[in-house]
Amino acid sequence: MPQIEDKLAAMDLKLPPPFETPPDVRRNIRPVQYSGNQIHLSSQGPQWGRGIRYYGQIGKDLTPEEGYEAARVAALNLLRLLKDDLGDLDRVKKWIKVRGFINCVPSFTRHSNVMNGFSDLIVALYGEERGMHARTVVGVSSLPFNYAIDVEAVVEFE
Amino acid sequence: MPQIEDKLAAMDLKLPPPFETPPDVRRNIRPVQYSGNQIHLSSQGPQWGRGIRYYGQIGKDLTPEEGYEAARVAALNLLRLLKDDLGDLDRVKKWIKVRGFINCVPSFTRHSNVMNGFSDLIVALYGEERGMHARTVVGVSSLPFNYAIDVEAVVEFE
Amino acid sequence: MPQIEDKLAAMDLKLPPPFETPPDVRRNIRPVQYSGNQIHLSSQGPQWGRGIRYYGQIGKDLTPEEGYEAARVAALNLLRLLKDDLGDLDRVKKWIKVRGFINCVPSFTRHSNVMNGFSDLIVALYGEERGMHARTVVGVSSLPFNYAIDVEAVVEFE
Repeated sequence: MPQIEDKLAAMDLKLPPPFETPPDVRRNIRPVQYSGNQIHLSSQGPQWGRGIRYYGQIGKDLTPEEGYEAARVAALNLLRLLKDDLGDLDRVKKWIKVRGFINCVPSFTRHSNVMNGFSDLIVALYGEERGMHARTVVGVSSLPFNYAIDVEAVVEFE
Repeated sequence: MPQIEDKLAAMDLKLPPPFETPPDVRRNIRPVQYSGNQIHLSSQGPQWGRGIRYYGQIGKDLTPEEGYEAARVAALNLLRLLKDDLGDLDRVKKWIKVRGFINCVPSFTRHSNVMNGFSDLIVALYGEERGMHARTVVGVSSLPFNYAIDVEAVVEFE
Repeated sequence: MPQIEDKLAAMDLKLPPPFETPPDVRRNIRPVQYSGNQIHLSSQGPQWGRGIRYYGQIGKDLTPEEGYEAARVAALNLLRLLKDDLGDLDRVKKWIKVRGFINCVPSFTRHSNVMNGFSDLIVALYGEERGMHARTVVGVSSLPFNYAIDVEAVVEFE
């Protein structure tokens, strides 16, 4: 069994089913795109199949702890895109750069703690050497589908 | 005649003239920058020469349909930057990653439909194989020049 | 003495000490990450060691001129990350892409002038050929630590 999926199973985590957008939304996108040995991923939120698990503003509708969980689900969705395309999550050689856009109230200042929900999972799965990444995280006024967070990534594969 | 510009002409589309910023604005930037076979582009809005075609907030000043048109004009401005630098739009081998920042009211959730104004045009011109790209789109509280949308891209050239 | 640091000294500029985050914040990140001959940097704000030099919203708490200075301090922090990792700032071959996220009031439209605080310094140090970069700058509703600005970059090294 591949190593990363073995770890996911040991952590009792499942990859989410593909996102089914609401009927009034169309998205003309490619989930992952290749450039040399880099993969650029379309951003993913905390959706789970047909539903959005965490939506609304952190600091109003959601707590920072729920934001942490939302970031973790966004990571699982990105992993699913990689698995669908690469076949095996072990083929991700290293995580390069991650950008998190957080739906939060203007007074919020603890974006880093929310985003750790993403980074902690990736580092737990891939280890510090391969998993630890450069990161940017900012607060925005709105996100598609009222996501609590939206995350994109660049990885290297082999 | 080059193929992409042939298609633009067949669609009755023209590339906008260079942006002339207002006299109180200075921008110390390079429109396009090379890194290996990647071109990283400075973000472009829906400007047309000296004027801004679509400005204000989607959901307040503009409809989502106008936002779609704004995204299309942003695409034309990015194409103009590529044409100015590469000489020929056929030299764009593939579109890698596109980021759209939408000036919209906080309650807006249909960013994807607006951003399709960009992606539909690029896919119509370059086809699915070369044109379809990884994408991120978020809502922001303000943009330079009160643009309705601001879009940046990474492409590969040959 | 290395050329870039020589110029910094001639401009009477010092690189800031490492950022010490407040006790309630943890950041699971890598300051810089390598991908081929690219370095992707984690975003940096206008912090100086333990304190934040410029915080709050431009247009309310800060003037655009203070925003310009904030962007300059963010540049110094990114330079420090590069110096810590590369040992010598002359090893930065060229600046590829820079993204600035500005904490400003929704009515603000002069993001470009604020961001020049970053770009002017980098071009002064590296010259137009190596220092001038593709750029994106947008206004956001909140930033980590209530930074006035947050900036990330991709550079090439040798």
